[in-house]
Amino acid sequence: MKIKINRNRLVSTMNEQASIGHTPGGGLHRLALSDEDKEVRDWLLKKMKDLGLETRIDTVGNMFGRRSGIDSDAAPVLVGSHLDSQPYGGIYDGALGVVSSLELIQTLNDNNIETSHPIEIVNWTNEEGSRFQPAMQGSGVWAGNLDLETEYAKVDQSGQTFESELERIGYKGSVPAEPMESYESALELHIEQGTKLESNDKDVGVVSGIVGLSWGAVTFHGEATHTGTTPMHERRDALVAAADLILTIRRLAGTLGKDTVASVGYADINPNSINVVPKTVTVTWGIRDPSDGVVDEGRRKILEATEAIAAQEDVEFEYEDRARSHSIRFPDQPVSAIRHAAKDLEYNNMEIFSGAVHDAANVASVCETGMVFAVSKDGVSHTEDEFTSWEDCYRAANTFANATLRLAE
Amino acid sequence: MKIKINRNRLVSTMNEQASIGHTPGGGLHRLALSDEDKEVRDWLLKKMKDLGLETRIDTVGNMFGRRSGIDSDAAPVLVGSHLDSQPYGGIYDGALGVVSSLELIQTLNDNNIETSHPIEIVNWTNEEGSRFQPAMQGSGVWAGNLDLETEYAKVDQSGQTFESELERIGYKGSVPAEPMESYESALELHIEQGTKLESNDKDVGVVSGIVGLSWGAVTFHGEATHTGTTPMHERRDALVAAADLILTIRRLAGTLGKDTVASVGYADINPNSINVVPKTVTVTWGIRDPSDGVVDEGRRKILEATEAIAAQEDVEFEYEDRARSHSIRFPDQPVSAIRHAAKDLEYNNMEIFSGAVHDAANVASVCETGMVFAVSKDGVSHTEDEFTSWEDCYRAANTFANATLRLAE
Repeated sequence: MKIKINRNRLVSTMNEQASIGHTPGGGLHRLALSDEDKEVRDWLLKKMKDLGLETRIDTVGNMFGRRSGIDSDAAPVLVGSHLDSQPYGGIYDGALGVVSSLELIQTLNDNNIETSHPIEIVNWTNEEGSRFQPAMQGSGVWAGNLDLETEYAKVDQSGQTFESELERIGYKGSVPAEPMESYESALELHIEQGTKLESNDKDVGVVSGIVGLSWGAVTFHGEATHTGTTPMHERRDALVAAADLILTIRRLAGTLGKDTVASVGYADINPNSINVVPKTVTVTWGIRDPSDGVVDEGRRKILEATEAIAAQEDVEFEYEDRARSHSIRFPDQPVSAIRHAAKDLEYNNMEIFSGAVHDAANVASVCETGMVFAVSKDGVSHTEDEFTSWEDCYRAANTFANATLRLAE
Repeated sequence: MKIKINRNRLVSTMNEQASIGHTPGGGLHRLALSDEDKEVRDWLLKKMKDLGLETRIDTVGNMFGRRSGIDSDAAPVLVGSHLDSQPYGGIYDGALGVVSSLELIQTLNDNNIETSHPIEIVNWTNEEGSRFQPAMQGSGVWAGNLDLETEYAKVDQSGQTFESELERIGYKGSVPAEPMESYESALELHIEQGTKLESNDKDVGVVSGIVGLSWGAVTFHGEATHTGTTPMHERRDALVAAADLILTIRRLAGTLGKDTVASVGYADINPNSINVVPKTVTVTWGIRDPSDGVVDEGRRKILEATEAIAAQEDVEFEYEDRARSHSIRFPDQPVSAIRHAAKDLEYNNMEIFSGAVHDAANVASVCETGMVFAVSKDGVSHTEDEFTSWEDCYRAANTFANATLRLAE
């Protein structure tokens, strides 16, 4: 069976959600558990109820909406993504996956199509991790990769806890945050946030896996002395050490796998004054590769370099691991469902590895999981300039709907 | 004639000023034109009045207190330093020079010593330059090296203007900020903020000059993209460019003069997130050398390197000069007055070049100027750990008092 979703309705629903937490720059500022997050959750809840779905909220705030299947014993297919955004982020990241799931259900309803397996829509709590860390808290707790009480206690910069904010917006549900039954499979639709589809002139991406990732933080401790009066050989400059590490990590990437990426995105300098030799500098780095072996080798080399640089600059250092997520290769069944759906629709598609980690990485530890990628213009995301054309949204959503139908039939 | 100041009173007056803007860590947080600056200015004004000095405040907030001389035509000798501090700075930097000036006047009063020349105490506005830039605003305007209206318009990080803050604390005086008459000479006492005196086991320093200095700011503009999905060859990473420049400047210092120092003390990274390639990074650098030719050559090489690095990393850049102060060699009269005073007091002294720039550099463009340096433990300054023993404070203040008397007699 082949279905065709409604392009205009998809666009209209995308615009509805994009109006909640809308920024003057045309993006979204809809941080997890904020007032805007509450508003978009209320909107989603009404949408799911209007579609006749049986809704539930779990204790970490994940929202589910279930459409029954014909076979009462059949395991459900889980579809969705997340509705929270980065600060001044884009309107597509996450939201397109949730809206496409609504559009899928509406299309099935319109065409009176019943599936053997139930289909469940999900909106995961706090995928972005910009207000409360880590990212993907909702799917992480649900999949058993994070501990609920630990995540409840996390605080944002203003000192509010995750739990109190979840209660405040009314989304601390009563259903346990865990898979209550077996799942047949799960699909997530997301924008690519990279340039592979665009540069290869493809319509849609069939995601074959997610890269492994290692994040770390290094703090160098030097000595704050006067830049005018301290001879060069007496300096213990934490910023020089940090600069050396930043360049080392940049060069390291090219010596590992062909797809290895590594960088320092964050640095905090103290006292950060033009005429004081920097005393302490913290940098956070990340390295990603489709192979976990390469990620581990990269981490080891970064630690070796850190030690050597600290010795050379006569500074002390502390090291802390911040995150490690393992490389995932999606199983054949969901990947081939997506590939066949795209082929049936005559969309120019390609298999790609995801450089970003998604909720699907957590879900993959529970059931067979796959992902559809929509084209991202210039690969720009996490900013207001993020853009996916409505045609590319439509193609990805249509592929997603048909792949889901294949799995749920 | 030889005088001997009162060691206990010097210590007591130092402790009085150190209690204003005192930090729990034993330092001072007394930023220019802050409430704490107002409080210490009120304290100084009362001290000067109690000493019988004729006080005046100029339009840039510099505070003067004059003790008349015997000869009504004789030009005054100017003595002093500054009372503002770095953020969480030390209690000696600047303050020791102002307190020693008060102690000098008190000693002259106690001994009924009259001098031919008047003696004027000065407290210069905003020497540190940590809240409003550039440093040495008060002496700069007074000496004609800075423009009053331009400095009035400078804003701090919270958007307050220099002029409004000067008015707010009640120290926008009515006297023109300029030398109202010829000055016989000027002396400043300051802590060394370096290790030369200590490592040569000296009691006091006779400053022969001040290094030349050039400060600049570079902003690299790259592209904010996702660290997981942007291939290394497509990145335009502003932080990698900045790191390269920081290391280049560090290495450059060793290729110029034997006393050249150069460094980056400040960096501002945007968006500064672990998983976003840095879009813009601003760094500020400084280079100093006793020779102006070396300073200019260093600046030129830094600019060349900036251009080359920007091209290599495919980022744009903007450059701005932040400061340029020329190397100064102090004239013989004040230097020899200090040398003879130290010798008379049987203090082990040496001539040294100042690696830090001081208000004396501005004053030197108005009249013959000299400086006395007190020993700095481990050369540490601009932090709460700054330390000069009371014995070293006393020796420097005693040298300063006797050198002033030589010039004013």
